[in-house]
Amino acid sequence: MPVIIQKYGGSSLATPDLIKSVAAKICATHDSGNSVVATVSAMGDSTDNLLSIASQVSVMPDLRELDVLLSTGELQSCALLTMALKDMGKKAVSLSGAQAGIRTDSSHGKAKIADIDTSRILVELEAQNIVIVAGFQGVTSDSDITTLGRGASDLTAVALAAGLNADRCEIYTDVEGIYTADPRLVPEAQKMTQIGFEEMLELASYGAKMNPRSIELGMAYQVPILVASSFNDEPGTLIYDGGNMDSTVGEIRNRVRGIATDKDVAKITVFSVVDRPGIAADLFDPLAESDISVDIIVQNASVSGTTDLTFTVKQSDVNRAMKVVEEVANNLGTTNVGKTENLAKISIVGTGMQDSPGYASTMFRALSEANINIEMITTSEIRITCIIGAEMVGEAAEVLHAAFELERSD
Amino acid sequence: MPVIIQKYGGSSLATPDLIKSVAAKICATHDSGNSVVATVSAMGDSTDNLLSIASQVSVMPDLRELDVLLSTGELQSCALLTMALKDMGKKAVSLSGAQAGIRTDSSHGKAKIADIDTSRILVELEAQNIVIVAGFQGVTSDSDITTLGRGASDLTAVALAAGLNADRCEIYTDVEGIYTADPRLVPEAQKMTQIGFEEMLELASYGAKMNPRSIELGMAYQVPILVASSFNDEPGTLIYDGGNMDSTVGEIRNRVRGIATDKDVAKITVFSVVDRPGIAADLFDPLAESDISVDIIVQNASVSGTTDLTFTVKQSDVNRAMKVVEEVANNLGTTNVGKTENLAKISIVGTGMQDSPGYASTMFRALSEANINIEMITTSEIRITCIIGAEMVGEAAEVLHAAFELERSD
Repeated sequence: MPVIIQKYGGSSLATPDLIKSVAAKICATHDSGNSVVATVSAMGDSTDNLLSIASQVSVMPDLRELDVLLSTGELQSCALLTMALKDMGKKAVSLSGAQAGIRTDSSHGKAKIADIDTSRILVELEAQNIVIVAGFQGVTSDSDITTLGRGASDLTAVALAAGLNADRCEIYTDVEGIYTADPRLVPEAQKMTQIGFEEMLELASYGAKMNPRSIELGMAYQVPILVASSFNDEPGTLIYDGGNMDSTVGEIRNRVRGIATDKDVAKITVFSVVDRPGIAADLFDPLAESDISVDIIVQNASVSGTTDLTFTVKQSDVNRAMKVVEEVANNLGTTNVGKTENLAKISIVGTGMQDSPGYASTMFRALSEANINIEMITTSEIRITCIIGAEMVGEAAEVLHAAFELERSD
Repeated sequence: MPVIIQKYGGSSLATPDLIKSVAAKICATHDSGNSVVATVSAMGDSTDNLLSIASQVSVMPDLRELDVLLSTGELQSCALLTMALKDMGKKAVSLSGAQAGIRTDSSHGKAKIADIDTSRILVELEAQNIVIVAGFQGVTSDSDITTLGRGASDLTAVALAAGLNADRCEIYTDVEGIYTADPRLVPEAQKMTQIGFEEMLELASYGAKMNPRSIELGMAYQVPILVASSFNDEPGTLIYDGGNMDSTVGEIRNRVRGIATDKDVAKITVFSVVDRPGIAADLFDPLAESDISVDIIVQNASVSGTTDLTFTVKQSDVNRAMKVVEEVANNLGTTNVGKTENLAKISIVGTGMQDSPGYASTMFRALSEANINIEMITTSEIRITCIIGAEMVGEAAEVLHAAFELERSD
């Protein structure tokens, strides 16, 4: 019998009625002749509520205890969904992360899955049970509960699919799939029927709110992932290993698949840094120690022994980052540090772009014709990213969507 | 180092501030040079809230899944209390019932503790940790979560005390101890400084809301139990194995220790039952199958081959019980079944009463002088119980409290 893994997000389980309709969806998959293992997030806002209570009993909640606390949200939705299934006459059983054999390291709050012992799940499937697994959590070799990080119920689903060698992993959420751009910015945005893992990784920053680690895991274990709505029966988007086919099909297919946007960006430039080995480490180690994520880094070509180093951080981190940079600037041989706030990141994503010049110039020309100034440019193999003013991001997404004819996507 | 087990009830942990003050109480015990293991109930109304959600997803929630759901309440308070302790600079660790080694049978919703594997707790105590254990729950040999029944966090505490051979078990709750009568009925009721296990078992139906199974367990393992308020530092009541000393001390001490009351009583009488062997089983088996608890049973002496059989049930069960009894009455050779609703049970409790006549007559005379009619009488070795009208229970408690001079108790 085919094994299907499903995942339902918190907004899909926010009320007793929604839990019942998720149960009905699972029943339908089971009735079509599949073995079903479903994993769930915590109901609605319950994780945020638990975090709020934790902050009221402790200034800096202990990470091990926070994991125990937060893991209860998924246990609750897991038990409730299983009750609803049994009420519909189905054989079903709930399993905690520990019972499902999801073994992790002991990095509380952001644990990594070490391996999955599927023996208990296999016993339950053998007994004709629908298996509901609490998402987002695992257990250490010392039997301590861990959580995998925000949004990591997706990861549980893909890991179960990999461990059980499942036929498919289905992520049901509050969007209908992966779009060519954020539909809130670009009304013409099209839902894709399919997309490659690598392209999806680049797009993961918007829309489907897919956890990037789960896409990486799906790519590593070649688990096809369907992203679809839990609120209707529309077909959704299949993320699969065939993304690179685009480049072999050649010029016929449009190589830009989608536009990713992120409005939470600020940039910091350290001017006239002495250009010597180790300069980057001297700057970025203190930022990492302060737990500030640096996104894009651009170092201009060295002129007369000094160089300008520019990098982006989240808008909310910019003041803390400035403080750290100003403290270390002296060691870098400069005191000249500047910041620009309220920026946005806009990217075009598609496999095979690297081999095909013209995409970059099309992008830059489209932005220029719309009078949108580009502050920084970076590229990866399958992505070209520009940093622009945050207030321009909607217009930029519109003109790029039109320039690459994405309204004509599949 | 002495090992102290503490238990904190849900009303003692209902808000973040209350959790912090419980943490302070635990700190104080630890700072006095004790090893502390504390067990907790779920915060405030959280168990009732979970039950309400369960009833909205399932007409008859599956018992295994209900246990998973309900066990999360104690996990949450357990993690929050541990966070609060760590915030105060203490070494502390939370353990679920499973992690604490509380192994049970698989009777979901009312599991019995099979044994306690204290190895993990001992490791944590050895590492100088304060150990906080989620009450009310355990784990089967198949790693399934069980709960021990409502109010069974007391049971967790006493079982841990027995398993760890603790010096004392302290139950902190929203009352200051065990009283000679329910203080809401009898303003003169006195808090006892100590009481024997057997007497406490008989009194357990009111006031301290102590779980009777935990008193039995304390009696079996000779674990002294202190019941006290979590909201102040008043001394509380010690339940211990010395209760029978009263009878050896002789006439000097008042043998009636307290008055137990219960207003939730109705009685059913089956008249003119054919008096043959097996009649009681024929009547009470169907009631047990319908999950109706029968409390007191009285069978009158047989007159000319027939007998009247009277028993009490909870007021809320009386209509269901009548239906069952009417269905089986024909088999019993009668059709004559009657009920009386809105009754109460009032008992005087004390060791050594059996050997000393006069207590029963004092009780009956006191009630009679207050014009309180007695509907039924039953006795145990240490208790005399009368069934009276529910509206008379306050006055009855007052007159009995005065008749046995309980306002002069220790």
